[in-house]
Amino acid sequence: MAGKVRLADLEDLCRGAAVLGTGGGGDPYIGRLVAAQAMRAGGDVGLIGLDELDDAALVIAVGNMGAPTILIEKIPNGDEPVWALEALEARLGRKADAIIPFEAGGSNATIPFLIAAKRGLPVVDGDGMGRAFPELQTETFNVYGVSASPVALADPHNNRVLIEAHSAEMAEWLARGVAIRMGGRASIAEYAMDGAIAKRVSVPATLSLCLTLGRVIRRARERHADPFAALIAALADTHYSHGRDLFAGKIVDLARATTQGFAIGHADVEGIGAWRGRMTITFQNENLIARHQGEVRAIVPDLICVLDADTAEPITTERLRYGQRVRVIGISAPPIMRTPEALAVFGPRAFGLDEPFRPLESLPDARRG
Amino acid sequence: MAGKVRLADLEDLCRGAAVLGTGGGGDPYIGRLVAAQAMRAGGDVGLIGLDELDDAALVIAVGNMGAPTILIEKIPNGDEPVWALEALEARLGRKADAIIPFEAGGSNATIPFLIAAKRGLPVVDGDGMGRAFPELQTETFNVYGVSASPVALADPHNNRVLIEAHSAEMAEWLARGVAIRMGGRASIAEYAMDGAIAKRVSVPATLSLCLTLGRVIRRARERHADPFAALIAALADTHYSHGRDLFAGKIVDLARATTQGFAIGHADVEGIGAWRGRMTITFQNENLIARHQGEVRAIVPDLICVLDADTAEPITTERLRYGQRVRVIGISAPPIMRTPEALAVFGPRAFGLDEPFRPLESLPDARRG
Repeated sequence: MAGKVRLADLEDLCRGAAVLGTGGGGDPYIGRLVAAQAMRAGGDVGLIGLDELDDAALVIAVGNMGAPTILIEKIPNGDEPVWALEALEARLGRKADAIIPFEAGGSNATIPFLIAAKRGLPVVDGDGMGRAFPELQTETFNVYGVSASPVALADPHNNRVLIEAHSAEMAEWLARGVAIRMGGRASIAEYAMDGAIAKRVSVPATLSLCLTLGRVIRRARERHADPFAALIAALADTHYSHGRDLFAGKIVDLARATTQGFAIGHADVEGIGAWRGRMTITFQNENLIARHQGEVRAIVPDLICVLDADTAEPITTERLRYGQRVRVIGISAPPIMRTPEALAVFGPRAFGLDEPFRPLESLPDARRG
Repeated sequence: MAGKVRLADLEDLCRGAAVLGTGGGGDPYIGRLVAAQAMRAGGDVGLIGLDELDDAALVIAVGNMGAPTILIEKIPNGDEPVWALEALEARLGRKADAIIPFEAGGSNATIPFLIAAKRGLPVVDGDGMGRAFPELQTETFNVYGVSASPVALADPHNNRVLIEAHSAEMAEWLARGVAIRMGGRASIAEYAMDGAIAKRVSVPATLSLCLTLGRVIRRARERHADPFAALIAALADTHYSHGRDLFAGKIVDLARATTQGFAIGHADVEGIGAWRGRMTITFQNENLIARHQGEVRAIVPDLICVLDADTAEPITTERLRYGQRVRVIGISAPPIMRTPEALAVFGPRAFGLDEPFRPLESLPDARRG
């Protein structure tokens, strides 16, 4: 698709991005505020499809890195992501022609719009995660061969760090250390690549998917229809083909620590109505695995989305609270994220989980299981 | 002075550097090994006085950063300091004309000779600390107005990080985080400046002082004279004018932890012979304060040197052991290190000490006190 993203689209975009954020990617409201501020001054932002991208265009991936628990207390100052981009451009000796979110999840789906509005650049309709993931190497850009270095980081005081590492894992390790010392969060610019490569290594059409998902939830609410059913129906026509009700209930236990630069923990949901027993959702910034009575119901890289039981508003891991009534939805990751190469980088083992990846659609349903 | 430093000079240089290291700067034997290896291949290294330096020459400060407890297990690979220099040169778009140690203490006095031998560059006879200090901002280069940024770090795998921070303290904070993630130690290149500035902001003639101090200790041993008396006598003719016996005894207690990227702790020395009571020496990589029966006997930036009681070989903080017989010598820091500006940056308060700075020569002697 080619088109414009307008100020009025941001609310839908952010809601959809919070669905794809699968608990992470940073608070979408903050992402919306910083993008809206820039777009009020800079105007609408062009959204271009991967197929429209010039093969020689320089594409740079941008976003925020750090614990989402910190983002909600340490808000980007509005220039910081631009500074990170500039630091990388200075190293490359060349300016970006287009911006791509490294993750189309949470606030990181909207940070590119801030930069794009300020710099008059288009945003590419795609990303490097197809959701949110916690680490720098867990990106399709890395899976399919783009170097993670150089990576540039900037903080709200315009302190800048440029990292050139031999592997994406080492780049992550060093960048995480810097982000922690920058206060637990930093803006980053990374995975500089040309348009021809971006077409091959990106998860396509994820920003337009965010717009669609945000819109169908809003419209279902407006006509008093079931927003969960609308969400699942909307997925069927996309490469995220399979959406499923995983569980519904009340949060009865929650453990969450901001440690090593991540928000790490788990939430226990006690079933309500037809849903019996307890579901435990484990997260590292993002939800990684949902277990129900010891059975895996969904596992990374498939998406596990915790939504408000009444409004279907997605709830990020840092906003989980005891007593919340929630609905848990599983979404199948698109094929580019389920290849053996992709699973080696962001499958369950990459997060220390013993369970192998099993596609959501092949797992037994909690009501039947 | 202008001259050459030859392979055969390295032993004296390193012994003297370990005296100025005041417990830190990294194991001098390791510093000697890495410099010797490079000089065997590259030949003698020119040592030029600050007064001989061309005003327009690009001078870059180099060394290792991190906990000395880690250096002895994670030895520089011989290319690492060159990689750090190259990373900074790439940022500056210009090659160094001369190398200066950021500290003329411990192994960091010899790291410049490794680079110089490999690159055919001269080493400047001076440094940015006049001793060893634990942190990047505790340098006369910073005290007298040179920007600590950009700073480049490299690890043994040639992973590189470039930091551009708004203050020397922030550069230290970020670089320390990177050094920790590089394994607790990294090579760094920093404080790029021209020759005219180097003349104004460097502690002069500290490498030739290292050579002198190392030589007088060796010669006193060779003729079975008192090496401590020879050391103190040799200082009298220099800008480190005042040397003093502070204490002699046996190490009876030692606490040392590698924490936050530093070796932090204290050693208690029980007096022997004429020396009564107990002296406690507190260190953060380097010895910071020597207290005897509650009385301050020497305090940073003055030098507190722990030497083997028989041979006068300096003992770095990471080599301190229970039961060692030691002699503790105090050395007055030169005037450039005792100005109000300098004390604000590396006086007692900068290390969290409550006691004000008092010059060694004004403090009561432990035998009389």
